[in-house]
Amino acid sequence: MAEPIDFYFDFSSPYGYFMSEKIDGIAAGVGRKVRWHPILLGVVYAVSEGKPLTDVPLKGDYAVRDIARSARFHGVDFAMPSPFPVATQAAARAFYWLHEQDCTLARRFAHAVYRAYFKLGRDISSPEVVVDIAESLGADGAALAAALKSDPLKARLKAACNEAIAKGVFGSPFVIIDGEPFWGVDRLPQIERWLDGGAF
Amino acid sequence: MAEPIDFYFDFSSPYGYFMSEKIDGIAAGVGRKVRWHPILLGVVYAVSEGKPLTDVPLKGDYAVRDIARSARFHGVDFAMPSPFPVATQAAARAFYWLHEQDCTLARRFAHAVYRAYFKLGRDISSPEVVVDIAESLGADGAALAAALKSDPLKARLKAACNEAIAKGVFGSPFVIIDGEPFWGVDRLPQIERWLDGGAF
Repeated sequence: MAEPIDFYFDFSSPYGYFMSEKIDGIAAGVGRKVRWHPILLGVVYAVSEGKPLTDVPLKGDYAVRDIARSARFHGVDFAMPSPFPVATQAAARAFYWLHEQDCTLARRFAHAVYRAYFKLGRDISSPEVVVDIAESLGADGAALAAALKSDPLKARLKAACNEAIAKGVFGSPFVIIDGEPFWGVDRLPQIERWLDGGAF
Repeated sequence: MAEPIDFYFDFSSPYGYFMSEKIDGIAAGVGRKVRWHPILLGVVYAVSEGKPLTDVPLKGDYAVRDIARSARFHGVDFAMPSPFPVATQAAARAFYWLHEQDCTLARRFAHAVYRAYFKLGRDISSPEVVVDIAESLGADGAALAAALKSDPLKARLKAACNEAIAKGVFGSPFVIIDGEPFWGVDRLPQIERWLDGGAF
């Protein structure tokens, strides 16, 4: 049985959103599973000198256009949210809290958060919105709201970010297959060839 | 008759090299021509806050791996040169000088420079190497060597960089089709769909 694929992403990353709509299906097609790892690009960028694409001169204007075009290219429903980007601590912490209880629920929550932000324009930086999304999927909202303020859960997310950095993750989405790193949804053709035919 | 496609690149850009091996054939498949525009990423990066990929923490290690893998993915002969990156003023100026005389020769020269650097590891930052490559294709080496030191040719390259920046170019390769910008060789699937089926 092959090892699961690792998928790192920030809930505020549009290219991460596109990947989230693709990676499980591609992996399933070759009989593999995917481990999802929400991280905070702000923490990663402190190491890798990154900044939000839309803040970079020239590149920022291009990014807005490329993001919308890439959504159409990949056939993913998308509307550029405002504000963008937003803080995603609450959403990422909620994911790990849910994952401790039910990994399938956590996966459904991750899809719901991404779609809430990138389809519906909901403010996923708000803990209330995050709790509301989790509740709508059947989670215990009051318990989650309390957990979001707790130190162990904060430490859990911090550890996830540090583990990602230790594996060389510097952006979102970032996919690692049997030790081979792939950055960006535009690496999907290489990922598919790698999964179908092995290392090239 | 559709407008030519514009292709901007730096001779020290490996992803630009991969694009250079693909773009003319793709364009020809839909009956279109390509205008090649060598530029200097150093000049562009002064505006768009870029820096050589391999100088960025974490991203640098990834880039070395991704470049070699992307070469294999695209089926392009490649060996990572050292030193990398190198200054490409002489090569870019020579391109524009040749282009004034014979655009086909300039195109052959551009391919030869890219392959000299990324297949053979020749030092294309050297004016002597650049002149040697041009001479091997039948150009007047002595005249080119003299021209490389001349102010009008320096001004020609400077103008090309400024025109590129004015069009929003911030990296290499950068392709503009009927006003639509595509950054990176990883946008080839989108470029092909755009050319085959029109705007999407």
